[in-house]
Amino acid sequence: MKKILIIHGPNLNLLGMREKGIYGEKPLEAINHELVGHGASIGLAVETFQSNSEGGIIDAIQAAALKYDGVIINPGGYTHTSIAIRDAIAAVTIPFVEVHLSNIHSREEFRKTSVTAPVCRGQISGFGECSYILGLEAMRRILERQV
Amino acid sequence: MKKILIIHGPNLNLLGMREKGIYGEKPLEAINHELVGHGASIGLAVETFQSNSEGGIIDAIQAAALKYDGVIINPGGYTHTSIAIRDAIAAVTIPFVEVHLSNIHSREEFRKTSVTAPVCRGQISGFGECSYILGLEAMRRILERQV
Amino acid sequence: MKKILIIHGPNLNLLGMREKGIYGEKPLEAINHELVGHGASIGLAVETFQSNSEGGIIDAIQAAALKYDGVIINPGGYTHTSIAIRDAIAAVTIPFVEVHLSNIHSREEFRKTSVTAPVCRGQISGFGECSYILGLEAMRRILERQV
Amino acid sequence: MKKILIIHGPNLNLLGMREKGIYGEKPLEAINHELVGHGASIGLAVETFQSNSEGGIIDAIQAAALKYDGVIINPGGYTHTSIAIRDAIAAVTIPFVEVHLSNIHSREEFRKTSVTAPVCRGQISGFGECSYILGLEAMRRILERQV
Amino acid sequence: MKKILIIHGPNLNLLGMREKGIYGEKPLEAINHELVGHGASIGLAVETFQSNSEGGIIDAIQAAALKYDGVIINPGGYTHTSIAIRDAIAAVTIPFVEVHLSNIHSREEFRKTSVTAPVCRGQISGFGECSYILGLEAMRRILERQV
Amino acid sequence: MKKILIIHGPNLNLLGMREKGIYGEKPLEAINHELVGHGASIGLAVETFQSNSEGGIIDAIQAAALKYDGVIINPGGYTHTSIAIRDAIAAVTIPFVEVHLSNIHSREEFRKTSVTAPVCRGQISGFGECSYILGLEAMRRILERQV
Amino acid sequence: MKKILIIHGPNLNLLGMREKGIYGEKPLEAINHELVGHGASIGLAVETFQSNSEGGIIDAIQAAALKYDGVIINPGGYTHTSIAIRDAIAAVTIPFVEVHLSNIHSREEFRKTSVTAPVCRGQISGFGECSYILGLEAMRRILERQV
Amino acid sequence: MKKILIIHGPNLNLLGMREKGIYGEKPLEAINHELVGHGASIGLAVETFQSNSEGGIIDAIQAAALKYDGVIINPGGYTHTSIAIRDAIAAVTIPFVEVHLSNIHSREEFRKTSVTAPVCRGQISGFGECSYILGLEAMRRILERQV
Amino acid sequence: MKKILIIHGPNLNLLGMREKGIYGEKPLEAINHELVGHGASIGLAVETFQSNSEGGIIDAIQAAALKYDGVIINPGGYTHTSIAIRDAIAAVTIPFVEVHLSNIHSREEFRKTSVTAPVCRGQISGFGECSYILGLEAMRRILERQV
Amino acid sequence: MKKILIIHGPNLNLLGMREKGIYGEKPLEAINHELVGHGASIGLAVETFQSNSEGGIIDAIQAAALKYDGVIINPGGYTHTSIAIRDAIAAVTIPFVEVHLSNIHSREEFRKTSVTAPVCRGQISGFGECSYILGLEAMRRILERQV
Amino acid sequence: MKKILIIHGPNLNLLGMREKGIYGEKPLEAINHELVGHGASIGLAVETFQSNSEGGIIDAIQAAALKYDGVIINPGGYTHTSIAIRDAIAAVTIPFVEVHLSNIHSREEFRKTSVTAPVCRGQISGFGECSYILGLEAMRRILERQV
Amino acid sequence: MKKILIIHGPNLNLLGMREKGIYGEKPLEAINHELVGHGASIGLAVETFQSNSEGGIIDAIQAAALKYDGVIINPGGYTHTSIAIRDAIAAVTIPFVEVHLSNIHSREEFRKTSVTAPVCRGQISGFGECSYILGLEAMRRILERQV
Repeated sequence: MKKILIIHGPNLNLLGMREKGIYGEKPLEAINHELVGHGASIGLAVETFQSNSEGGIIDAIQAAALKYDGVIINPGGYTHTSIAIRDAIAAVTIPFVEVHLSNIHSREEFRKTSVTAPVCRGQISGFGECSYILGLEAMRRILERQV
Repeated sequence: MKKILIIHGPNLNLLGMREKGIYGEKPLEAINHELVGHGASIGLAVETFQSNSEGGIIDAIQAAALKYDGVIINPGGYTHTSIAIRDAIAAVTIPFVEVHLSNIHSREEFRKTSVTAPVCRGQISGFGECSYILGLEAMRRILERQV
Repeated sequence: MKKILIIHGPNLNLLGMREKGIYGEKPLEAINHELVGHGASIGLAVETFQSNSEGGIIDAIQAAALKYDGVIINPGGYTHTSIAIRDAIAAVTIPFVEVHLSNIHSREEFRKTSVTAPVCRGQISGFGECSYILGLEAMRRILERQV
Repeated sequence: MKKILIIHGPNLNLLGMREKGIYGEKPLEAINHELVGHGASIGLAVETFQSNSEGGIIDAIQAAALKYDGVIINPGGYTHTSIAIRDAIAAVTIPFVEVHLSNIHSREEFRKTSVTAPVCRGQISGFGECSYILGLEAMRRILERQV
Repeated sequence: MKKILIIHGPNLNLLGMREKGIYGEKPLEAINHELVGHGASIGLAVETFQSNSEGGIIDAIQAAALKYDGVIINPGGYTHTSIAIRDAIAAVTIPFVEVHLSNIHSREEFRKTSVTAPVCRGQISGFGECSYILGLEAMRRILERQV
Repeated sequence: MKKILIIHGPNLNLLGMREKGIYGEKPLEAINHELVGHGASIGLAVETFQSNSEGGIIDAIQAAALKYDGVIINPGGYTHTSIAIRDAIAAVTIPFVEVHLSNIHSREEFRKTSVTAPVCRGQISGFGECSYILGLEAMRRILERQV
Repeated sequence: MKKILIIHGPNLNLLGMREKGIYGEKPLEAINHELVGHGASIGLAVETFQSNSEGGIIDAIQAAALKYDGVIINPGGYTHTSIAIRDAIAAVTIPFVEVHLSNIHSREEFRKTSVTAPVCRGQISGFGECSYILGLEAMRRILERQV
Repeated sequence: MKKILIIHGPNLNLLGMREKGIYGEKPLEAINHELVGHGASIGLAVETFQSNSEGGIIDAIQAAALKYDGVIINPGGYTHTSIAIRDAIAAVTIPFVEVHLSNIHSREEFRKTSVTAPVCRGQISGFGECSYILGLEAMRRILERQV
Repeated sequence: MKKILIIHGPNLNLLGMREKGIYGEKPLEAINHELVGHGASIGLAVETFQSNSEGGIIDAIQAAALKYDGVIINPGGYTHTSIAIRDAIAAVTIPFVEVHLSNIHSREEFRKTSVTAPVCRGQISGFGECSYILGLEAMRRILERQV
Repeated sequence: MKKILIIHGPNLNLLGMREKGIYGEKPLEAINHELVGHGASIGLAVETFQSNSEGGIIDAIQAAALKYDGVIINPGGYTHTSIAIRDAIAAVTIPFVEVHLSNIHSREEFRKTSVTAPVCRGQISGFGECSYILGLEAMRRILERQV
Repeated sequence: MKKILIIHGPNLNLLGMREKGIYGEKPLEAINHELVGHGASIGLAVETFQSNSEGGIIDAIQAAALKYDGVIINPGGYTHTSIAIRDAIAAVTIPFVEVHLSNIHSREEFRKTSVTAPVCRGQISGFGECSYILGLEAMRRILERQV
Repeated sequence: MKKILIIHGPNLNLLGMREKGIYGEKPLEAINHELVGHGASIGLAVETFQSNSEGGIIDAIQAAALKYDGVIINPGGYTHTSIAIRDAIAAVTIPFVEVHLSNIHSREEFRKTSVTAPVCRGQISGFGECSYILGLEAMRRILERQV
């Protein structure tokens, strides 16, 4: 069974508490539970990680390369500014899929540009927690070399 | 069974012939066949449409609103410039999901901005033909009100 | 009696169906009926044309030059991008008046710039269907050399 | 009978003297006379005001709100820079229509953007003194709730 | 007792009448009364001045330098454009504090930049009429050389 | 004998009628006749095509790849905006030469940038109808592998 | 008694050591002591926190929402770049006041824009340590619903 | 004897009091006295005018056209923003020479662009009060048709 | 026989040595030999000149005006920056044709803009040494007044 | 007697031959003769120098510092681009005055910015050959410490 | 013996694993070993530190000021965005030298600007691990007051 | 022994005379003497060249390729604008190292971008004449294939 890490960036631990109109009402824990379940159903052993720290996320990316077959990442607010996270993703060889809960293209101007997406395999944005589910589906296909 | 239209924008009829390093080797017909099949397997009646014409795509969007429950659209080169297609999408009430074969974020600068994505529910980019499959998965969830 | 063509650009065939807060509730057919009537009342024989196609609008502009004394044009979403429509207007010698239903200056940033207005005689924006009526009034004065 | 104020911004007192190729040959006084006449013919009691002073125009706007049903404004050179006039218009509740003698879209780049138009109901540009006439027509329809 | 002038820029005379969601419901007169009272309570003799005119505000700034120990200024719409007011502030030697009722950073893009703030001692923005109170507190400390 | 298609973009059917100071006085038909003749004289079988439609031009480009050895294209107003035409050119493998009647570098700012030229072999601009003749000369050399 | 957290961002622990011309000579500890004292004098129980870490500040913001009634924040160098801190502030419901020791409008160009201020209630900048005192005064009024 | 008006813009009445490092130590009155003297010595009857008001300056420009043969203008802070003053200068037919005390090219970025210079005959900048003297010399030559 | 000067700008003396993938393998001397031959065959007496110096090229342009009927110029790296060369071309009355070996539109962003092309009759770019041949053909037609 | 060098930049040797509408009809030699005469009449020994070469102008600037008391410079087309000339001026201690024949503010956009003016004492632009005369007058006053 | 700290920013712990074409094949540990050796050979006691955390690097900079005589810093991806690290460097008084393994000027556009270099003594970029060696050489000279 | 050329760009012949706060007090001759000495001590035969002329520097670069093993270049003011020098460096195959006396990142905005650095092996900036010494050290390592 392939092993996948899901990295939740800053403030995603607030899911279910934060601006519900944008991010939905389900807490992160419940979402993680579903993601692990969905992963199992399609043959992926899913683990999750959350950090508010840019350095912490870089550490996790570096460590992931030794232990996982792929990473689903929602870099949150770091999406638009972190060259350091971008460099970390570019430096490791396992595939990354970038996901966003909200449609980043329909919010503030500064959310439209992703610094990290160019070094990921692709980006999925706008489907709430289903963005993660779709990310897992994408990863499964990547690992099966369909993509 | 919900009815879904997949709109392929300009030059996608060349799939399998065009810059294969970027777009893959499978012809559009074969992809459409798979998409119809995948749709059926998840309860969606899929039809497809391709046009190189901006006006033709607008016509199709307008007509779709009367006949389909949702649209998957790959606006191709019109993604980055067509306010008219954007207006068409905004004018109809069924949900749209934007998809791209290649990762538009890792190509030329002018491909990073989508004029149409802000009026779609979300965007999926970078997974080759699987972007469409993921688009169908997203649409199913949207129609089931999971998103 | 002077002959005037009114060209409605992309998505204006959806009037009465589309984002009513912005565009009003009356269908295009009804508006056209009123415009023909108003034209007649001020001595103008009005005909109307709608197309979602940039090329179709250019064809209509070129043909109009041989048959009409002036054109009222609402280029819709092409207003902000179509150099080809601009070139068509500049290439013919009859006068053009540009009109918009909504106030393009109070919407998204990209709607504030008109590529076509510089080659029209003037622009009227923000008065709903009355923008067309005012356009006819302006055209009458242009043809009577008051402007 | 509804009362309308027409505000002429800076340098419009020079009409008939100033760059005639652009602004025409009729003096402001004569134009005002015609505007009062035209207003009367469509049921509007028109008064006029001219000032070269940004502050003077703001004072007039504020005062107008207590005495008139609507304002036609040609902010002249302040169109492109005056946030203070914009704030004044936004602060009062009667409707404003912005007019320009010349087609501001076909002149210098800096004349294409209007700071004040977004808080007016609409903008009419390019029809010489007829722009004011059309502005009165527009205002009549606004006050009759046709717009 | 130190003497302080509070300068209210354009449209602030409309307080209590203007867009209440943004500016609050209390009229300027009442606010001035409170400011004089608060000033007295902390040892400052407060006087107030309002003008819609850029030149009038410059005159007031120049005159203030001879008669007051400091100025609290809300330049209103001139904040973002008036180099002339900036030059006036820079030319006199008494301290200035810039205040704004609304949070200028959370409104339109063009309100985020202040041309005048760089030559003031500091800026306070977003606390409604309390911005003035805080401005007085800041000024008291400046005059007591705590800042 | 090598086969060459010449594609004339929007408004070029107006040649001889349109702004003669810029585009010359000869109608398109006459120019085409000369181009066919010149082609024959240097061993190229020339056919011509004109369309005002972006989609029509894309269709023609795609079809050309199966039937011609090279294409001379004057994308007219689409030169500066059409990513979709660019993608069509990039997708087919026969060589393209871009030509312009007028010197696009000495006109409006927006005419200086060509979206399509980067995927053509070269660009010729400013020599009236001779630009096409030179384009044929260039194409002959390309097909003879001199370039 | 209302509880307030004061968050000092990166490098503020160097106060009294760092570029004294800009930031003053008093160490952070002494300032904190005064702030606690001033808070007590106006009925606010003040606690303080300093971190050089973006993630650490986000953690503190999230935790504060459960324990404090409001936050005074000086995001230091993160003011101008941290979308992640902005998201944290936006995600919690207690009020924030942004403060800066120096007048950020009179320093380098890049210090003039605050990414975080739009989601705070207001911003106070330029009064040295008194900016914090004024921030406490502002917060007291916010909590008493005067603002 | 030709009659010349010298218009001093905002804050120039502070000369001799204001930032002396930049503007010198002589009061405006003394400078005006010298300018009248110098004018007389080269056959020009010089009068002077100062205003802090944009509208006041426009009024003066309009009036000058009827009474003077030329104008020397230092628009001060309005130099960089006032389209209304520019329009006034363009509207009258007597020649204008723009002067500045300081070298506007070696100060803040926003002082490098003059909105008014393009409609003046020329610009002289950087020679303190001598800029006015040189402006008079330039005007004499313009009126003698040497320029 | 008409006399033509071909001016090769900086680094073109390295042809055949320099980045061969871009510029081809033939040395400048050989190319010049061919150009003289081709010129002769179409009735043009061709001479050539190469300089790495901006001033040297300006000198050559000025001198050419007295001795040649037209100039073919490849300004090399000066194409994108030299206003001085542009001024020289604009100052003389014989026609200029600008040529480039490589397709300047498909290289670095800064190579897309030509400062000199607006004052030439036209530009030919992307056909290797054949760009010069085409330039001669263009010049012949210009001198025969076909263009 | 003070010694002054006048440096004429590129293409100024063409004066009297070049675009006469802009630069006048008198040849450089004649102008130089007048400048030497005018200099003598106000106590300045004037010499002149012209070069089309950026390096030649830098050499002249460096040499001038050892031999002249001041320099009048018209950098021509280098005005807008030459950081190297700017550095040369900044490196020597004698005063420089920048002059231009035409009003650089009323021509192409790129002529509005001077790279060299910030390191000169001032700039005079728009008075034809009189710009040099005024430059000499300015220099005399600078050397007499009036400026 | 002077004490020097070398700070390696984010992802540099991956050296020898990461994109080897760009960063070389030697692991960080080996490089550090060589740097300590080289330092010793020129009289510098070198210690090293690596962190992926922006806050961690700020902490290290602050601590270094108390214990080291100078710092060599490679801020990695933070180079281009971290105002907070810039502020830390500016706040301490020991000298900093910025180094980069790759030539940051020949990579993506966003890597060309360094936020931190302006507050360092200098920058060395492009020499692989030798950039650190050169940094040590530079630091030795700085400490010996040769620079 | 490897042969190295050091190219000093414009105004560097003024070293020791020019703005000493920025460039130091030692004349170029003395620096060259030291550089030759230092080169000899590390096995490099160093020669030096200085020119104020862009063309002269290009000539020197081209000639160097035939005679030297590497070049140290300080392009001075041409660093930021000369595409022609960049092309020359790119055209030859020996390695280049770019050096600057001052820290170009801490001066005017326009000095931060180097047009030439992307085609050099690396850049060293900010260490006064030691920048050259470090450049020699870098070159030695490049030639020994350590870099």
